[in-house]
Amino acid sequence: MIDLKRVIAEYSPDIKETESVKKLSDDLINKIKEYCRLQNINAEPLLVGSSSRGTSLRGADIDIFIRFQRSYGIREMENLGLEIGHSVLRNGVEKYAEHPYVSSNEFGRKVDIVPCFIINNAKERLTAVDRTPLHSEYLKANLTMQQKDEVKLLKLFMRKQGIYGSELKTNGFSGYVTELLIVNYGSFLSAITHISTLKGQLIIGEPEATKKFVSPVIIIDPTDQQRNAGAAVSLTALSILKLSGKTFLREPSDSYFGMAPVKNPSQNVDRGTTFYIIRFRRPEIVDDIIFPQVQKMISTLTRASKEYSFNIINTEYSVDEEIQVLLELETDILPSVKLHSGPPVESDNVIPFLQKHSGNDVLRGPYVMDGRIFVELRNTMNVYDNALNKILETADLGKHINKVKQEFKIERYKGKLPDLAVSTNFLSKRNPN
Amino acid sequence: MIDLKRVIAEYSPDIKETESVKKLSDDLINKIKEYCRLQNINAEPLLVGSSSRGTSLRGADIDIFIRFQRSYGIREMENLGLEIGHSVLRNGVEKYAEHPYVSSNEFGRKVDIVPCFIINNAKERLTAVDRTPLHSEYLKANLTMQQKDEVKLLKLFMRKQGIYGSELKTNGFSGYVTELLIVNYGSFLSAITHISTLKGQLIIGEPEATKKFVSPVIIIDPTDQQRNAGAAVSLTALSILKLSGKTFLREPSDSYFGMAPVKNPSQNVDRGTTFYIIRFRRPEIVDDIIFPQVQKMISTLTRASKEYSFNIINTEYSVDEEIQVLLELETDILPSVKLHSGPPVESDNVIPFLQKHSGNDVLRGPYVMDGRIFVELRNTMNVYDNALNKILETADLGKHINKVKQEFKIERYKGKLPDLAVSTNFLSKRNPN
Repeated sequence: MIDLKRVIAEYSPDIKETESVKKLSDDLINKIKEYCRLQNINAEPLLVGSSSRGTSLRGADIDIFIRFQRSYGIREMENLGLEIGHSVLRNGVEKYAEHPYVSSNEFGRKVDIVPCFIINNAKERLTAVDRTPLHSEYLKANLTMQQKDEVKLLKLFMRKQGIYGSELKTNGFSGYVTELLIVNYGSFLSAITHISTLKGQLIIGEPEATKKFVSPVIIIDPTDQQRNAGAAVSLTALSILKLSGKTFLREPSDSYFGMAPVKNPSQNVDRGTTFYIIRFRRPEIVDDIIFPQVQKMISTLTRASKEYSFNIINTEYSVDEEIQVLLELETDILPSVKLHSGPPVESDNVIPFLQKHSGNDVLRGPYVMDGRIFVELRNTMNVYDNALNKILETADLGKHINKVKQEFKIERYKGKLPDLAVSTNFLSKRNPN
Repeated sequence: MIDLKRVIAEYSPDIKETESVKKLSDDLINKIKEYCRLQNINAEPLLVGSSSRGTSLRGADIDIFIRFQRSYGIREMENLGLEIGHSVLRNGVEKYAEHPYVSSNEFGRKVDIVPCFIINNAKERLTAVDRTPLHSEYLKANLTMQQKDEVKLLKLFMRKQGIYGSELKTNGFSGYVTELLIVNYGSFLSAITHISTLKGQLIIGEPEATKKFVSPVIIIDPTDQQRNAGAAVSLTALSILKLSGKTFLREPSDSYFGMAPVKNPSQNVDRGTTFYIIRFRRPEIVDDIIFPQVQKMISTLTRASKEYSFNIINTEYSVDEEIQVLLELETDILPSVKLHSGPPVESDNVIPFLQKHSGNDVLRGPYVMDGRIFVELRNTMNVYDNALNKILETADLGKHINKVKQEFKIERYKGKLPDLAVSTNFLSKRNPN
């Protein structure tokens, strides 16, 4: 029998960590209060996020919001927010979501200090983050002590399956969504039981509020009926949750819980295919920009390759200091003949077509099939190496990747994969994890 | 300038041939009359077909129909017809269309002696061939002297393009259809001009009569409003006529006329593909059965190969004493991995699927894509040689070809084609011819 209490204990912060987080956040809040008092700034710091409501796992971030009176202008609030952030985080760096904030790892864990406006309900909000303190209030009032542990279990379950986190890197379930699922279903097991037998979308909320959204997961934010808190969750993330829920319930095991997916690569065998791996230095931009850009690069290359009749059957990528993009091709050498479709025989264009294709470039034909004229021509782009170089010359791979195009290293592998991060990702693709 | 009179003269029977055909047909008709008188058979011989109405080309067949009174039973008529046929054709062999008849080449050209019933209009017909004498009557009354030459031009034009003949080997224009086109359009040039600028179907007849037919060519038989005389013409044959009409009118030349297509093969170059050629002795059956059976064999093999993921990009065949079937493949070796699609993650079948695919046969996965589970398995049928042998074991290739399956010789060519009839057909595919 699986001991869920043991799982919770293993991944929850121990007393020492809890006390240290409490001390650190109290200290930061006091410093901010003091700074505001001295500088005559009308703003109040507030601990938000999982650390503020007992749903955090070991090593969790500390999120402190500074709530400004609405009499401040937006730019003024932003500038003062940064000023305060830097005053308490000695090694803080500026980051940017909807507006800038200060972030630091100087205390052994990530600390974010984010300015926002104080509001009483979502309708009053001036920036996207103004709502966050309302989430904390709502959850403090609606999660029982026991349910805070249930939230942790659900997070650990999702983390292990690689579907935790609403960033564009993951397109999964945010911490807030996880907490709303426990508020709604009552417990981890109840949530998993419901979702694993669910057909179609996951919808939580009044029909009046949910009906205007179209996405795999629709969870109305209790603090804002106009917002779908589950908008970021992809169909694949929801499907993985359904699947792993099914297999977990069938044979429960603590191997379903963890801080991150375990990479357990399949054997690196000769698949009879050809791999192209494009390697380049990661541009210095945040995950939420580089991940979608790499994904877009892959779909652009796949589509453009298709136009040259090259069939890319699998793709993978890894993003570290180096970005590695893997393309798996059925074959990277096509026939040297290609069928070229001309106009219907009824068209006036058929004569110019025949005149154009009367030379030595025609390998066979012209001939009629059904109602149309065709010729077989020499395919000069039948080797993928050439086609890929041609594609890379002209393709738009996104603003930041375009800039490093000249540095691309292209490697070709037939047979086994090389020992690279992207190969590990490729071979580790497995659900449930 | 092209001299159409010279073309007509070149391919029309000369005086000597005309006289010899007249003498032979008169002689056969007299012999049949005599036989009927002596045997007390109530039937009348009649010369039909192109020889009877001055629309024949050099070396044309002689078709003599024996018209029986409708008081005879069908079997009786058939038996007497064969008896008469054998009595006048010493080396005659029995052939079979809708019913049996006697055919011979003993006079240096093909002579068919076909029994039928005498009818006054198509509604009275008891067999399909009863209508034929009505066609002769109609054309004798409706084709002028000059138009008989126009019919010859149109036949020669179609013969050169390989679209003359309604047999299943050609799926083209019958002699009768050619004659009806001249009756309708008045002349060869007028017919070609109309058809080459035509969009869509070729339709001749009253809307009331044509509307119930669906085929590329609808030409109501003037002797039978219920019949589409053009039913056998394929879309490809009509398209080739449109195309070659267009190019001929643009640059008229007597190279557009002849008794048969000229084979003018393209250069035999390495196309970067793989050819499989299946060779076997032709079963002793008539063209109208073996040609559709070979065509069906090719579509069966193409479809079955597709199921093993082999893409056959071109096919060709030749039928002589040996039948040769050519399949051109993009590649005959596929990846040794194949993507195997499982059920949607919502399905109860997902658990048995995961259990089934938990062993060493899985090269990668299982994993979720969108809402479905997949595994990558070893493709053990990734070499076409094996797949083709497997296909041939079980495929239904038609009654007569199935019988000689064991004698199939399968040859594989990479690079150039071998020196075979089917290779010449393959390389000669060209329209206009």
